[in-house]
Amino acid sequence: MTTITETAQPARTVAFVAYPGITVLDLVGPLQVCAALADTVPGIRTVVLGERIESMGTDTPLSVLPSHTFDEVPDPDVLVVPGGLVPTLAAMADETLLARLRRAASGASVVGSVCTGSLLLAAAGLLEGRKATTHWLFRDLLVPFGATPVADRWVEDGRYVTAAGVAAGIDMALHLAGRLAGEDAARQVQLLIEYDPQPPFGGIDWAATDTASYAPFGKQVLTEALAGHPELLARLGGGPFLRK
Amino acid sequence: MTTITETAQPARTVAFVAYPGITVLDLVGPLQVCAALADTVPGIRTVVLGERIESMGTDTPLSVLPSHTFDEVPDPDVLVVPGGLVPTLAAMADETLLARLRRAASGASVVGSVCTGSLLLAAAGLLEGRKATTHWLFRDLLVPFGATPVADRWVEDGRYVTAAGVAAGIDMALHLAGRLAGEDAARQVQLLIEYDPQPPFGGIDWAATDTASYAPFGKQVLTEALAGHPELLARLGGGPFLRK
Repeated sequence: MTTITETAQPARTVAFVAYPGITVLDLVGPLQVCAALADTVPGIRTVVLGERIESMGTDTPLSVLPSHTFDEVPDPDVLVVPGGLVPTLAAMADETLLARLRRAASGASVVGSVCTGSLLLAAAGLLEGRKATTHWLFRDLLVPFGATPVADRWVEDGRYVTAAGVAAGIDMALHLAGRLAGEDAARQVQLLIEYDPQPPFGGIDWAATDTASYAPFGKQVLTEALAGHPELLARLGGGPFLRK
Repeated sequence: MTTITETAQPARTVAFVAYPGITVLDLVGPLQVCAALADTVPGIRTVVLGERIESMGTDTPLSVLPSHTFDEVPDPDVLVVPGGLVPTLAAMADETLLARLRRAASGASVVGSVCTGSLLLAAAGLLEGRKATTHWLFRDLLVPFGATPVADRWVEDGRYVTAAGVAAGIDMALHLAGRLAGEDAARQVQLLIEYDPQPPFGGIDWAATDTASYAPFGKQVLTEALAGHPELLARLGGGPFLRK
C-alpha cells in the first residue's frame, strides 16, 4: 500500500462542484474514487466547491456541505460537475453558477462532468464543437449547445471528459485516476473501494428497454426547470428527446 | 414511468444511518438507489438518521447532514448502516451508537450494512450465528463476534443483508429494491441511475491481487481505532487479518 509522502510538487487539486439539488451519487461516486486516490498517491488533493460553505439539499433526504468556496480555490487542476434533474436543468439558466464554472475551468487541465452536469458545461459555452455525453434521457439537449452527443459510458474530447448518467461517474473517475496517477494507482483505488460490480439483475439491457416511453417525463422535467426561461426552453426546442 | 400516487398504506421507511467519519459512498450508493425507488414506487420513503441534525465529516472533504434524528424515526422498516475506516472501527466501542442500532433494528424487517458497517451490527450483538460479509480487508473481524464471514458481494441471512466493501452497497441496494418492490421496479431504478457498470480496467482480478500485503494497513487502522479500548482490541485478536 502506498502511503502519503511529502512531495516538493504543489498538490494537484481535483475540485468537485456542489450546488443545491444535485443527484448526490453524481458527486459522491467520483469524489470517493478521487479521495481514495488522494489518500494513496502523493501530490493530489480533493475539494468540494460551493458558492458558500453551507448545507444544501440533494435529490435524496441527505444534505451536503462543500469544503471550500469557489473563491478559495480559483484554479483547480481538475474540475468535475455533477448533474441532477429539475435543479440542474434550471441551473442551465443560472448565470452566476455558469460564470463560476467558466472561471474554474479556465485553467484546468481536465474539465469533467457526470450525468446532466455536462449540460451545465454546455450552457456555459464550454462544449461547443466537442463530443460529449450525459444521462441517456437528456442526451439530445447537447445538440443546441453545439456539442455532438455520443452514447458512450464516458466521452473524452481534449481536456473534456463527460460521463453518462449518475453511476457512470464512478467509471469515468477511475479512468481519470488512471490518467492522473497511472493504471496501478487506479486499480488500487478500485480494490480499496471494492468496485467489482455485480448488478443483481445484470447490466442494463438497452435493446429491451423502451427508452422512448420516458420522453414525456424528460420533457416534463425540462419544462418545469425552465418555466421562467422561455427563450432557453425555445432554444432547446422544448427538448427533442430521444430522437433517432 | 411510474409516478407517485397516494396510498392508504403507511409508507415503509428505509432508514440510513449517518455518523461522523463514514465512507460517504457506503451511504450514498444505496441511498440513491432507495431514493429513486421511493420516487417511482408508492408507499416507500427514505430517511437519513443521525444522533443530531448537524453536519458531520466523512472520509472525503464532503460533510453531510442527516434528515432526522434516531428519536424521530424509532421504528424503520429497513435499516442500513454504512461503514468506514478508523471512525467506524472506533465506533465498535461506541455504546451510544450501538444502542441506537439495536433499538432501530428491533422492529425492522430488513437490517442491512455496507462495508465495515456490518462490524457495527456485529459489535451490537446482532450478527451472532449469522452469515455475513464486510470489506475484504476486515472480513475476519466478524469471527470474534460470532458471525460467519462469507466472501460474497452481499450476504442475506434471514432479515440481515450485509454487503462487501463500499461500492458493493449499490449492488445490495438493487437486490433490496427488488425485495421491496419487485424486479421491474428495481430494474427501472437501475435504468434511471444508469447503473450499467463498465470499469475501465475491468473488474477486480482477485487471483492476481496480493490482498495479504494490505494486512499491516488493516492492523494499523484497527489498532488506531481501538487505542482506547484494549479489551475489545484483545477480543478481536489484534485483527487476525486475511488468514486462510
